[in-house]
Amino acid sequence: MTVTHTQLANAIRALSMDAVQEANSGHPGMPMGMADVATVLFTKYLKYNPQDPDWYDRDRFILSAGHGSMLIYSLLHLTGYDRPTIKEIEHFRQLGSPCAGHPENFLLPGVETTTGPLGQGLAMAVGMAIAERHLNAHFGDELVDHRTWAIAGDGCLMEGVNHEAIGLAGHLKLGRLITLWDDNNITIDGDTDLSTCEDIPARYEASGWHVTRCDGHDPDAIRFAFEEALADPRPSLIACKTIIGYGAPNKQGTAATHGSPLGDDEVAAARDKLGWKAPAFSIPFEIEEAWQDAGKRCDDLYEQWKQSSTSHADWDEFDRRMKGDLPTGDRMLAYKRSLADDPPKVATRKASEMALTAINEALPETIGGSADLTGSNNTKTKDTDPLTAENYGGRYIYYGIREFGMAAAMNGMALHGGVIPYGGTFLIFSDYCRPAIRLSALQRARVVYVMTHDSIGLGEDGPTHQPVEHLIALRAIPNLRVMRPADALETAECWELSLERKDGPSLLALTRQGLPPVRTDVGANRCAKGAYRLREATADRRAILLATGSEVHVALEIAERLEAGGFGADVVSMPCWELFEAQDDAYRRDILGDGENVLRVSIEAGATLGWERYTGRKGLNFGLDRFGASAPAPALFEYFGLTADAIAPQILSVLKA
Amino acid sequence: MTVTHTQLANAIRALSMDAVQEANSGHPGMPMGMADVATVLFTKYLKYNPQDPDWYDRDRFILSAGHGSMLIYSLLHLTGYDRPTIKEIEHFRQLGSPCAGHPENFLLPGVETTTGPLGQGLAMAVGMAIAERHLNAHFGDELVDHRTWAIAGDGCLMEGVNHEAIGLAGHLKLGRLITLWDDNNITIDGDTDLSTCEDIPARYEASGWHVTRCDGHDPDAIRFAFEEALADPRPSLIACKTIIGYGAPNKQGTAATHGSPLGDDEVAAARDKLGWKAPAFSIPFEIEEAWQDAGKRCDDLYEQWKQSSTSHADWDEFDRRMKGDLPTGDRMLAYKRSLADDPPKVATRKASEMALTAINEALPETIGGSADLTGSNNTKTKDTDPLTAENYGGRYIYYGIREFGMAAAMNGMALHGGVIPYGGTFLIFSDYCRPAIRLSALQRARVVYVMTHDSIGLGEDGPTHQPVEHLIALRAIPNLRVMRPADALETAECWELSLERKDGPSLLALTRQGLPPVRTDVGANRCAKGAYRLREATADRRAILLATGSEVHVALEIAERLEAGGFGADVVSMPCWELFEAQDDAYRRDILGDGENVLRVSIEAGATLGWERYTGRKGLNFGLDRFGASAPAPALFEYFGLTADAIAPQILSVLKA
Repeated sequence: MTVTHTQLANAIRALSMDAVQEANSGHPGMPMGMADVATVLFTKYLKYNPQDPDWYDRDRFILSAGHGSMLIYSLLHLTGYDRPTIKEIEHFRQLGSPCAGHPENFLLPGVETTTGPLGQGLAMAVGMAIAERHLNAHFGDELVDHRTWAIAGDGCLMEGVNHEAIGLAGHLKLGRLITLWDDNNITIDGDTDLSTCEDIPARYEASGWHVTRCDGHDPDAIRFAFEEALADPRPSLIACKTIIGYGAPNKQGTAATHGSPLGDDEVAAARDKLGWKAPAFSIPFEIEEAWQDAGKRCDDLYEQWKQSSTSHADWDEFDRRMKGDLPTGDRMLAYKRSLADDPPKVATRKASEMALTAINEALPETIGGSADLTGSNNTKTKDTDPLTAENYGGRYIYYGIREFGMAAAMNGMALHGGVIPYGGTFLIFSDYCRPAIRLSALQRARVVYVMTHDSIGLGEDGPTHQPVEHLIALRAIPNLRVMRPADALETAECWELSLERKDGPSLLALTRQGLPPVRTDVGANRCAKGAYRLREATADRRAILLATGSEVHVALEIAERLEAGGFGADVVSMPCWELFEAQDDAYRRDILGDGENVLRVSIEAGATLGWERYTGRKGLNFGLDRFGASAPAPALFEYFGLTADAIAPQILSVLKA
Repeated sequence: MTVTHTQLANAIRALSMDAVQEANSGHPGMPMGMADVATVLFTKYLKYNPQDPDWYDRDRFILSAGHGSMLIYSLLHLTGYDRPTIKEIEHFRQLGSPCAGHPENFLLPGVETTTGPLGQGLAMAVGMAIAERHLNAHFGDELVDHRTWAIAGDGCLMEGVNHEAIGLAGHLKLGRLITLWDDNNITIDGDTDLSTCEDIPARYEASGWHVTRCDGHDPDAIRFAFEEALADPRPSLIACKTIIGYGAPNKQGTAATHGSPLGDDEVAAARDKLGWKAPAFSIPFEIEEAWQDAGKRCDDLYEQWKQSSTSHADWDEFDRRMKGDLPTGDRMLAYKRSLADDPPKVATRKASEMALTAINEALPETIGGSADLTGSNNTKTKDTDPLTAENYGGRYIYYGIREFGMAAAMNGMALHGGVIPYGGTFLIFSDYCRPAIRLSALQRARVVYVMTHDSIGLGEDGPTHQPVEHLIALRAIPNLRVMRPADALETAECWELSLERKDGPSLLALTRQGLPPVRTDVGANRCAKGAYRLREATADRRAILLATGSEVHVALEIAERLEAGGFGADVVSMPCWELFEAQDDAYRRDILGDGENVLRVSIEAGATLGWERYTGRKGLNFGLDRFGASAPAPALFEYFGLTADAIAPQILSVLKA
C-alpha cells in the first residue's frame, strides 16, 4: 500500500491531539492546522539528517509559533531522530520529559531554538540566515549552502519584533529564509478581526520580501508555493491558509482548539473524521516506515557533503569555528601589556573598542554591530567591513534602530554556530531587547552585549537615557553574566571572559565618561573571580568598599581618606556578581570579611537594591534609587552624592560611632 | 513689516542651534529640519492655549522624536507659554532647567509626554487618540473634540513598537491622529540606506493608514498635506521630506547635525544663510510678536468652549474624570464583606476579575484590555463592551498580541486624562513592555498592569513562560508599585490602592493557580502599608517569615510547624515593597523585628536576589534562582523545594543550631 500525504500528516495530527489530551494541557490547534505544510517540508524540502542532528550544513527549521511544540516533537519522532521517543511524547509537558510545553533547544537535538515568546523565533531565524550567508561567503558552497525555514503564526507577525526582524532580513536580501505563515485567522482571544485589519502580505512586500500564498491543506499547492519561494531572490513569506485544529470536526477553525485539549469526545470524533484508526500514541507500521524513509531522504547528500567537506582545504578552520573553539594562542596579552606600560585614562566604551581591535584581528568569527549607535558604542573596529547584501563576508552589521531585532538576530547567529556575535546599544535600551537577552541566557547562546552609557555618567540626555535599575534587573536573569569593568584593563579581561564562555551570554556595561586606570597587573585574569581585592587595608581593616565600574576609582579615593582617618579599608572591585557567586565559600568569605567586625559598603551609580546580599542590613549602600536628571555628568554625580567628597564623611561617621 | 513663515521657522532654528551650542550637547538637526512643519502646525492648525496648557479639549502634540527637544521648547517659549523662559532655554540640558535633554512631562506644562525612548511617543499618541474618541463617545462634541499630532523620526518608525502602535491605530480607525514623519533619510549612524530599504508609506497603508507626502520646507505644500490628512477618515501619516539641520550650510543633510552641536563656525554660517541677524537667544521684536499672536489664535475658540462646557449637563462628571478624582463612596466595601463572609479559594487572577466587577460598575472611567490573553488574565468583566472603531464608547480593548503597544497606549490614555486604563498579559511578558512600564513610572501615569501567571505556578508552559527574575526586576524601577496579593481580599485591597494612586503606575502580579484565603478582616486596607504582620508568634518569637502572593499560605503552614517545634514565628505578608519602604522607621523596625535575635526568612517563588534587604546576610532565602521547567504546577513547587514540607525542616534546623 502506498502511504498518502494525508496519512503522513494525520500521524502528526494524531500524536499532537493525543499528547495534549494526555497532558490535559497544550495547544493542539496549530500542529493539526500546519500538519500538511510541515509534512511537505519534512518529506520533500528540508535538508536534514536525523542521525546527525548537528550536521553543519543542515537546513535550520525554527518553530517560531513555539506553543505548537507537538508539531516539532512529532516530526522529530516520526523522521527517526533518537529522541523524543514515544514514551517521551506520552510524557509531554511532564517533569523531566524533553517534550516541554515549548520547544527547548537544550533538551532535544533537532530543536534549533527555544521558542514560545512570540515573534522571537522568526527574528532568530533571520540571524541564522545571516550566519549562513556570512559563512558561505568565507567558506563557499561546498561547506555552507543551506536554508532557514520558520513557521510563524499570527502572534509572531503581530509582535513588534517582527517589524524589526523582517526589515533587517529584507534589507540584507536574505533569500534563503522562508517563512511559513500559519494563516488561520485565529488568536487566543478569538478571530484576528478582533484586533487587527492589517494587510500582512503588503507589509512584507513593503519590507522587501517576496510573498506568495497557498492552500495550507493542499500538498500540491504547498509545493508550488515552496518552489516559487525557492526561485525568488528575496526572503519569502508563504501565507499558508489553514484551518486551526484541522480534523477536529466540531472545534476546528475556532479559538477553542488554540490552547486547550480537545477533550476525549472531540479526539474520538477527529479520529473518525481523519480516518485514523490507530490507538493513542501508536503509528501504523506503513505510515511509520514512510516517515522513516522521509527521514533518510538526504542520506546521499549528507554522505557527499561529509566526504567533500572533510577533505576541503578550509575544513579545520570551519570545523573549529562551528565547534565554537577559539583559536589557540593568547590573543590579548600584548594588548594588556601595552595597557600596563602606559595605562590610559579612557571611557570603558573606548577601552572596549581597543580590546575589540585586538580581538577582531585574532578571531575571524566575530560579527559586530550596533543598533544605530556605532560611534557611541564604539563597536566598529577599523578593519571590519560592513556586512551587507552585497558583501555577506563583512563583519559589522548596521542593525538600524532595532535593539530587539538585533539581539534576537544575535541569538540566531550564535545558535547557528560558526560566528560569535556582539552588538551594542545604550544600557538603558537593554529594556528594549530584554526578552531576547533572557532567551540568550535560557538558550545558552554565546552572545556578547556591549551596553554603553551605563549610568548617570551619560549626562545631558537625562532620565529617559540614564539606566538606574538596569544592572540589578539584568543580574537577576539566570545564566547571564553582567560585567561592569572599572578601567581599560578590566575591560580587556571582561572581553576575554565573554569570548571564552561557550554556554551563555555576557553583557558588558560600559561608561560614556573617561575613567582613570585602577590596575596595571596583567598576569592572571582577576575579573575571572567576579570580585577581587583591588586594594588591601593598611591600617586595621574596618571597612570593605565594594564597587563596580566607574565607582571603583571613587572607592579607592574614599579608602585613602578612611585610612587617613585611621580606619583600614579594603576596596573590592566586583565586575561580575555571577562569577563571584560561583567561587567557593572560602574565597567569598575572605573577600567579604565574613566573621569580622567590619563595615561593608557598596558604591554603584544605580539602584542599591540587591547590594544588601553583600553588605547586609547594617552596611551602607550608596547608589541611586530614583530616576536621574539632565545635566553634565560631573554635576549629576555631585548632585546625587556619588563622589568621594560626599561619601567618605558618611562612612567615617559610622566608623567613628 | 509682515513677518514671513520662514522668519517664524528660523526663530526655532536659531533657538535650537544656539541652545545646543551653549549646552555643548544635544540634537540640532531635527528641530532645524522640522521647523517649517512645526511652524505651520503651531500657527495654523494646532488647537491650544498657552495660558491654559491643561485645557481639556486642546489638541495633543507629542514630539515622539524626543531628542529634538529644542523644537518643543522653542515652540512653547515662542507661542507664549509661561515656561520655558529664555533663561531656561539658555540653561538647556543643565541641572535644574526644565529644558532637559529630552522633554519631560513633569517638568513643563505643554509637554504632554516624556519622549526620547524611540517609538513610544507615537505609541502613546495612539492611546491619546483612543481616549479622545472614547470620551467623545460619552460626552459629545461640545466637551471633547480634538486631535492628536505626533512628530516622529525614522527611528520612531523603525522600532518594533511602531508596528504594534500603527496596527492598533489602523484597526481602531483613529482618524484624528496625524503623524508628521520627519523624512530626512538620516539616522545617527548615517544614511538610512545603511540599515533599511523599507517602503514606509506602503507599510502604513497596509496597516489601514492614509499616507500623503509633502516638501517639509514648503509651507503651502505642508498645509495642503495637512488638509488632505484632516479630510481622510483614517489615521494619517504625512511624509515630510526634510533636510536635517536645514540652514547649516556645510552640515545640513548629514548625520553630523543629528546629535552634536554644530560648532561656533557653522552656527555663524547658518545665521548668514538663514539671514538671521539677531544674537544668540534673542528674537527680533516683530517675529516674537507674530509668534505670540499665533499663540492667541485659539483664544475665541477657547472662550466659547469654556462657556459651553461649563454649562453642559455632564460638566461635573467630565471635570471629575479629567481631574482624575474617583467617585465618592466606598466602592469595594460590599464586595470585601462578601469575601469575609464566604472566603473563596480562587486564583488571584480570578479574584482580580471579581474585584474588577465591582470596580467597573462603580468607576465608569476604567478601560480594560489584554494583549490577547483575555480569558487568562481575567481582565474582561461581563458588563464591559469592546471598544471598537464602531463603538468607541466601549470599555474593553482587544489589544492583540501587542504587549508593548498596549502598555504605551495605556500611558497615552492615562496622560490624556479622563480614563483609567488597565491591561493584562502574563507577568513574563512584562519584559516585552518593560520600556513602557518604565515610562509609566517616570511620567507618573496612572496605569494598572494586570500581570498574571506570576511564577512557576503557571505550570506546563515551561521556562519561557515562567517569570523568575521579574518581580525583583520590576521592583527596581523607581516609582512603580509592584503588588503581589496573597488571596482574594488582598487582591481587592491592592486594586483599591492602584486606583487611588494618582501619581504613578501599579502592577498586580497574580497567580494562575488557586490560593486559600489568608485573611477575613475587612476593616483597614492592610496592604496599604506594603507589609504587615499577618500572623503573630505564639511562642517566643524566633523567626519572621516574609512572603508574598502564593507563598503566604505556605509561610502560614510553615509557621504552624515551627510553633509546634517550640519556636515562635511571625508571618509577614509583603504584597508591596515600595509601600513598605515608604512607612516610618518605627513601623518597619517593628515588622522586621529589628534588634531582636530572630531568624528572618523570605519565601517567594522567584529570584531571591533583593530579599537580603529584609533578611540580612544571615537570613534564609527560599526562591528560584534558575530557570523553571515544564510540568504541572504542584510538581514544580515540589521539585524546586517551595513547599512547607521542604522548607520547614531547613528553618527548624537553623533554629535548633
